[in-house]
Amino acid sequence: MKTYQEMTKEELLFEAAALEAEFEKIKAKGLTLDMSRGKPSAEQLDLSMPMMDVLDSKTALTSSDGTDLRNYGVLDGIPEAKKLVADMIGCRPENVMIYGNSSLNIMYDQVARAMFDGICGHTPWGKLEKVKFLCPVPGYDRHFSITEHFGIEMIPIAMTENGPDMDAVERYVSSDETVKGIWCVPKYSNPQGVVYSDETVRRFASLKPAAPDFRIFWDNAYAVHHIYDEQQAEILEIFAECEKAGNPDMVFEFCSTSKVTFPGSGIAALAASEANRADIKSQLVFQTIGYDKINQLRHVKYFENIEGLQEHMKKQAAVIRPKFEMLEELLSREIAAREIGSWIKPMGGYFISFDALEGCAKEIVAKCKEAGVTMTGAGAPFPYGQDPKDSVIRIAPTYPSLEELKQAAEVFVTVVRLVSAKKLLESR
Amino acid sequence: MKTYQEMTKEELLFEAAALEAEFEKIKAKGLTLDMSRGKPSAEQLDLSMPMMDVLDSKTALTSSDGTDLRNYGVLDGIPEAKKLVADMIGCRPENVMIYGNSSLNIMYDQVARAMFDGICGHTPWGKLEKVKFLCPVPGYDRHFSITEHFGIEMIPIAMTENGPDMDAVERYVSSDETVKGIWCVPKYSNPQGVVYSDETVRRFASLKPAAPDFRIFWDNAYAVHHIYDEQQAEILEIFAECEKAGNPDMVFEFCSTSKVTFPGSGIAALAASEANRADIKSQLVFQTIGYDKINQLRHVKYFENIEGLQEHMKKQAAVIRPKFEMLEELLSREIAAREIGSWIKPMGGYFISFDALEGCAKEIVAKCKEAGVTMTGAGAPFPYGQDPKDSVIRIAPTYPSLEELKQAAEVFVTVVRLVSAKKLLESR
Repeated sequence: MKTYQEMTKEELLFEAAALEAEFEKIKAKGLTLDMSRGKPSAEQLDLSMPMMDVLDSKTALTSSDGTDLRNYGVLDGIPEAKKLVADMIGCRPENVMIYGNSSLNIMYDQVARAMFDGICGHTPWGKLEKVKFLCPVPGYDRHFSITEHFGIEMIPIAMTENGPDMDAVERYVSSDETVKGIWCVPKYSNPQGVVYSDETVRRFASLKPAAPDFRIFWDNAYAVHHIYDEQQAEILEIFAECEKAGNPDMVFEFCSTSKVTFPGSGIAALAASEANRADIKSQLVFQTIGYDKINQLRHVKYFENIEGLQEHMKKQAAVIRPKFEMLEELLSREIAAREIGSWIKPMGGYFISFDALEGCAKEIVAKCKEAGVTMTGAGAPFPYGQDPKDSVIRIAPTYPSLEELKQAAEVFVTVVRLVSAKKLLESR
Repeated sequence: MKTYQEMTKEELLFEAAALEAEFEKIKAKGLTLDMSRGKPSAEQLDLSMPMMDVLDSKTALTSSDGTDLRNYGVLDGIPEAKKLVADMIGCRPENVMIYGNSSLNIMYDQVARAMFDGICGHTPWGKLEKVKFLCPVPGYDRHFSITEHFGIEMIPIAMTENGPDMDAVERYVSSDETVKGIWCVPKYSNPQGVVYSDETVRRFASLKPAAPDFRIFWDNAYAVHHIYDEQQAEILEIFAECEKAGNPDMVFEFCSTSKVTFPGSGIAALAASEANRADIKSQLVFQTIGYDKINQLRHVKYFENIEGLQEHMKKQAAVIRPKFEMLEELLSREIAAREIGSWIKPMGGYFISFDALEGCAKEIVAKCKEAGVTMTGAGAPFPYGQDPKDSVIRIAPTYPSLEELKQAAEVFVTVVRLVSAKKLLESR
């Protein structure tokens, strides 16, 4: 098969015409398909239904330390839930605070607290002229929305196959005291599925920030979200590395069971050093008396321990793996072979980040929409929604059924080919 | 029986000496009792245990509009939960937003949002030189903690048997544009149990605020928390009154099922006008994707409707009523008869607010502590913890068993008598 670059102008014109006809046929089908949402499918959710049976009216709703979980109190979570979450992300239970149902809410509150109260006695960010965050790109749009909402200036940092460009990170963090944070998804990053290498994690832990209240926002959202039973990635545990490097207080780590059990009805957690936890609690007491401890107990009773949770995640993987494999095969055959797009093969997480030819992403997303296939908006994985190369498209394969996904993916590759051919023709 | 005022100095000295001896005897018992916490007792919590059975792995976890409640989405709550909550507080379902487990958290977030984002396009309070809140006293300490945390100046407003002193409220609100809010617990107020009269509610609804972003923080925490099956108070519905008075956007109303089902595992809600809800959601989308919808469904399935919830609250009342009646009887006999204290008999809510002789509250609480009985700190129901008359003590009778409460109450009345006798002797 010829790549599009290898084709003559005439061949490309012929290809574009054929694809245009194909595109019109697809449109006529009136499809309604969606590859935009990083949501579990109903089949995945079904896997967690037995969790609805682990507590009933005969269950003693008490924690291991005897606390009646039906009443007020316990600001930072029950001991057994701390243990489960700690095992999920590899840290110590005493680092963990269990919150409500949303790690996004915890992240928002962390930034809000830094803005209004300041971190560990430092000047509240809201009182500073300028506050900046480093934003590895492509990244998670809801991270960027939080920092944008608070008027924090976002600086894009290029991603590599091993994590963010650490030369750039080190340069900014060590030289600019207005740089107060960085958004990281260290394992199976959103959207690329990048796993931070040991060297990347160590360089993070060894940062020498100009700002004493610089914090790494370490969103370990996909800690246990493998796609394959073999080839499961592990990352270095960030707290241990930070302690070794003399930076014990530099990290806020976030995680949840939203994509383990039920999004919206899971448990979310923050892990932090003792000093950070004390600082957080000094404000949190004004905000709430405590989170849903019964739901914490429900999760613990359901999984029993980390092995139970890992077994559960294997079942999740079995549901989503065929979807990733199908996409992988189709994109390799139809796109990579023509050299009109690339991606990193994800081993975990919820996305494939597709790099189209420069200047094609918006057009591809628009034409997919025209053909009844909703994709995440082009630019969404970038601060301010601006992809400088107009090239990145986040593909979310988990929510549709395999059959629907196949249909949607076939539309997608047709559109990528069409838009790419036309783009290349512009310069012929 | 002579009142303490009627006693001669010698009689009072004799009384004080006898009480001192009695107090020493009590101390020797080494009691550990608690009347400080506005928490349901285990017996009350037991009443809600059947709620743990209404959902199981066979239940379709979908809302009335067909939404899969196990997945992401539904920012402001499921329709049937909105209906249940609306019926609880008497407003329209479309006014209601269902949040997570804590109305306190909603209130905190409302103030935080006003501070940072501003209300409906007005200048964020955090950018103003001065922001003030009116605080009816005695009131709820956690309300005052929120406003204090945000540096909002608190102005105490006297409570009457019909609600806050509305002359003072009207004067402040209409003349001072730095007055941005007022904390209200309109039904069975914390701690006095005051029920706002129709005139009070109408005068609230008819306020003419100098500040366009003035809001009434209407914490309807005890909407269905009656103590007696007869004599249940009703208050006018604030949104309807506000609309009539041309102030549709002036109220944020809060409530929860924390003291209906399980504190920490209930559902909490905010009710507001359309303009306010749109304003809130424009920020809330950055904070979370949605709250625990399965727990919303659990509550709806358990109660079925408002009648079911009211039946449940009758059972709660049957548990707490003997405690209030015992206290009422004991305080009447031992304290009121001696004219050394007064209170308003509460018909609902969780507290009795005891007015000791001036200058006695701190001493009474300290001596109770000495005798092994924990009371809410004197001053707690006032902004900055300062009770100008050092007179108010909040009594929380629900958490201990009736037997423990009796013991604690007997210690309390002995201490009140002792401290009062000594106080009166100071001026003899």
